[in-house]
Amino acid sequence: MIAYRSSLRERELLGLKDLSASELDSILLRAAYWESHTEKRAPILEDRFIANMFFENSTRTRFSFEMAQKRLGTQVLNFAAAASSMEKGESIYDTVRTLESMGIDAGVIRLKPIGVLEELAKHVRVPLINAGDGNNEHPTQALLDVYTMRKQFGEIRGLTVSIIGDVKHSRVARSNLWALRTLGATVKFCAPDSMRAPELEAYAPYVTMEEALNADVVMMLRAQLERHGEGILKSKSEYRAQYGLTVDRAKTMKSHAIIMHPAPVNRDVEIDGDLVEAPNSKIFSQMSNGVPIRMAVVERALR
Amino acid sequence: MIAYRSSLRERELLGLKDLSASELDSILLRAAYWESHTEKRAPILEDRFIANMFFENSTRTRFSFEMAQKRLGTQVLNFAAAASSMEKGESIYDTVRTLESMGIDAGVIRLKPIGVLEELAKHVRVPLINAGDGNNEHPTQALLDVYTMRKQFGEIRGLTVSIIGDVKHSRVARSNLWALRTLGATVKFCAPDSMRAPELEAYAPYVTMEEALNADVVMMLRAQLERHGEGILKSKSEYRAQYGLTVDRAKTMKSHAIIMHPAPVNRDVEIDGDLVEAPNSKIFSQMSNGVPIRMAVVERALR
Amino acid sequence: MIAYRSSLRERELLGLKDLSASELDSILLRAAYWESHTEKRAPILEDRFIANMFFENSTRTRFSFEMAQKRLGTQVLNFAAAASSMEKGESIYDTVRTLESMGIDAGVIRLKPIGVLEELAKHVRVPLINAGDGNNEHPTQALLDVYTMRKQFGEIRGLTVSIIGDVKHSRVARSNLWALRTLGATVKFCAPDSMRAPELEAYAPYVTMEEALNADVVMMLRAQLERHGEGILKSKSEYRAQYGLTVDRAKTMKSHAIIMHPAPVNRDVEIDGDLVEAPNSKIFSQMSNGVPIRMAVVERALR
Repeated sequence: MIAYRSSLRERELLGLKDLSASELDSILLRAAYWESHTEKRAPILEDRFIANMFFENSTRTRFSFEMAQKRLGTQVLNFAAAASSMEKGESIYDTVRTLESMGIDAGVIRLKPIGVLEELAKHVRVPLINAGDGNNEHPTQALLDVYTMRKQFGEIRGLTVSIIGDVKHSRVARSNLWALRTLGATVKFCAPDSMRAPELEAYAPYVTMEEALNADVVMMLRAQLERHGEGILKSKSEYRAQYGLTVDRAKTMKSHAIIMHPAPVNRDVEIDGDLVEAPNSKIFSQMSNGVPIRMAVVERALR
Repeated sequence: MIAYRSSLRERELLGLKDLSASELDSILLRAAYWESHTEKRAPILEDRFIANMFFENSTRTRFSFEMAQKRLGTQVLNFAAAASSMEKGESIYDTVRTLESMGIDAGVIRLKPIGVLEELAKHVRVPLINAGDGNNEHPTQALLDVYTMRKQFGEIRGLTVSIIGDVKHSRVARSNLWALRTLGATVKFCAPDSMRAPELEAYAPYVTMEEALNADVVMMLRAQLERHGEGILKSKSEYRAQYGLTVDRAKTMKSHAIIMHPAPVNRDVEIDGDLVEAPNSKIFSQMSNGVPIRMAVVERALR
Repeated sequence: MIAYRSSLRERELLGLKDLSASELDSILLRAAYWESHTEKRAPILEDRFIANMFFENSTRTRFSFEMAQKRLGTQVLNFAAAASSMEKGESIYDTVRTLESMGIDAGVIRLKPIGVLEELAKHVRVPLINAGDGNNEHPTQALLDVYTMRKQFGEIRGLTVSIIGDVKHSRVARSNLWALRTLGATVKFCAPDSMRAPELEAYAPYVTMEEALNADVVMMLRAQLERHGEGILKSKSEYRAQYGLTVDRAKTMKSHAIIMHPAPVNRDVEIDGDLVEAPNSKIFSQMSNGVPIRMAVVERALR
């Protein structure tokens, strides 16, 4: 199994942690090419078959990948099976091997159980693109985030990016951390004690909300309200009071700073509704940028 | 936002209430063109991307739109997220803006909350096609109904159309009312007290079942059995006895009159099973006619 | 309705029971053609529309059909509506007639209620392909099974095939039985009393596990764990002990014999996890072979 692994290495995208600056650059550059492409549809991959395998629900991310795939003319097959986090990795493994056996050329995969993707990739002979695995990585999200920052500031090197919210459970936070550090940015976290990831403290300090707002990019994470049961309304307003980006807090941001959020937002919880489409918010631009990023990633997997 | 609204006006389809007779005519005419088109597939829109955004379940209507879109060669992306009627319009708004950001050229949308579509259309810059919003409008259904009547009778002007059932909660009733009145037909309603819409009395009188059956078109509405909880079997047979189109009642219809129903039918509730495919029933013809109607509407949005 | 039925007869695929050896051969031969086809995509059916109508969940089978359809360039529309086995056949009938009215050229259908498909096929004017109906037939599964055996052994005539597990509820067992007998193989069943189908005893004897393992092909059926409620863990290990293909039992198989399973497997219930990818297991090959088989069947329906 070793032989085909090395050629897959350049086509799969499991995470950003081990990607070099030049590998990141080449994806970002290709995304810029696709963004500026005048024809909406460039069917260069009409004979390639790709499966979107979602073992965890995500209509938005699936939609974005499908848009990218169809702009490239790829043959798209969707597979959704909400597997509980309890479900054994084996059953995900069997399913992915099944779809592979049917002749797909690459797979986009989202799944909950931690550590399963790594194991999968060792046994599957087509390139896999990670669309979110547990709290580990969500590489295309971070790529589109970095792409959005680069469009705004020209350079990632030297930027200060604050990531605020449930860092512990966030694959978005982790993928951004790895890419931003590789490209020379400084990352700060801000989170309540229960939402901190101790293993990341070596890479980014936890700071107060006030310090976090002093940054070039203020990236809010989605409050995972579904994790809490009772007293959710109380916890919403408390969360907003302590860690939400309110209109008042946004006024203390630097004049050139931008607001980011991976979406979907909880309006008036982690971010005030009035800020979602504020002039310094890049939230909908992020989503636009997701398509050329995913075109670059899909093309890299299939060409 | 005003500037692009006026050009959208001619491409979107939010409802039939404000459409002129000539606008209705032009859609019906184009549907006739597509129905008579010899090639099943006329891929004139291969570079356009359309999203079917269903915030309320409807496999049949989605299927019909997708058939129309694929006959035109459109790139189709499906998005389904059963939002409860309780869900705030804001979250639907954010989702639609998200999909718009990803580069769709038009969207077909179905949703439950009343009044949200109107608001959405003010902020979204791609044309929206209403596939059913709350109890407000379901314009493509009424267009295919009118198209079916015109095929049958040659002219809408002068026809008498009875709409029987839960008028209060029916967007099909409303869209038909507006289109039929604009095109010169007379509409009569027949419904139990609890299913009447008082605000529509100015446009169409409520009549007895006997009077309702005296019409050129007898259009039965689907009994929303899911609204009732207890005693559903009792209410089924009671409903049939009082407002159902039974085989006996159908015999009292004029010899040239036709039976219509938006489907899916509840056999032996609002209509007897034996009538569904009776010679004077147009129920399956309506469904066939839905495809060219939606081709006309999709083409209008995207050309 | 008689007139169009006879021409449909050669294009539909309701089951294998009434197919002749030469009809089976011609499908298997065409599948071999498609398997050896060098181009992954052979868009010979771009103007044909096919609906995958799944009234019973099956993401894997649907995916395999869609792969086959897209390799042939067919326009694919998916329709899924998990109808309970309680649901009246009438509502399935109305839905299928609805999709037919919309202009599909053929339909792939999976459904639970027994006997409904036969009835449906009498009234629908497009060819239907059975993707599994109740416990009756699952013809494309058996075709891919037979195809897999023929690739392995060159000939079906003279083979001994043991089918082990819940024969009573298995459409896979029935379709294999019919095809294998027609092609000259000998079939043996092995099942606990509660899982035997008395009406099949005329065609294949029930034997002990030891005798069953003495065969050229050992085909394990999926244990329908969802049928059992309480004590499922206990029944799992008991089932494995009595009817599971364990590593130890597999050692008693003939050296040239192969293991088959329609998938998805319950690892360590009806088959030990270590056997799934053993050298004599054809489980993932079966899935690969499903695609050319379904290409042959879809092409037969649409050409």
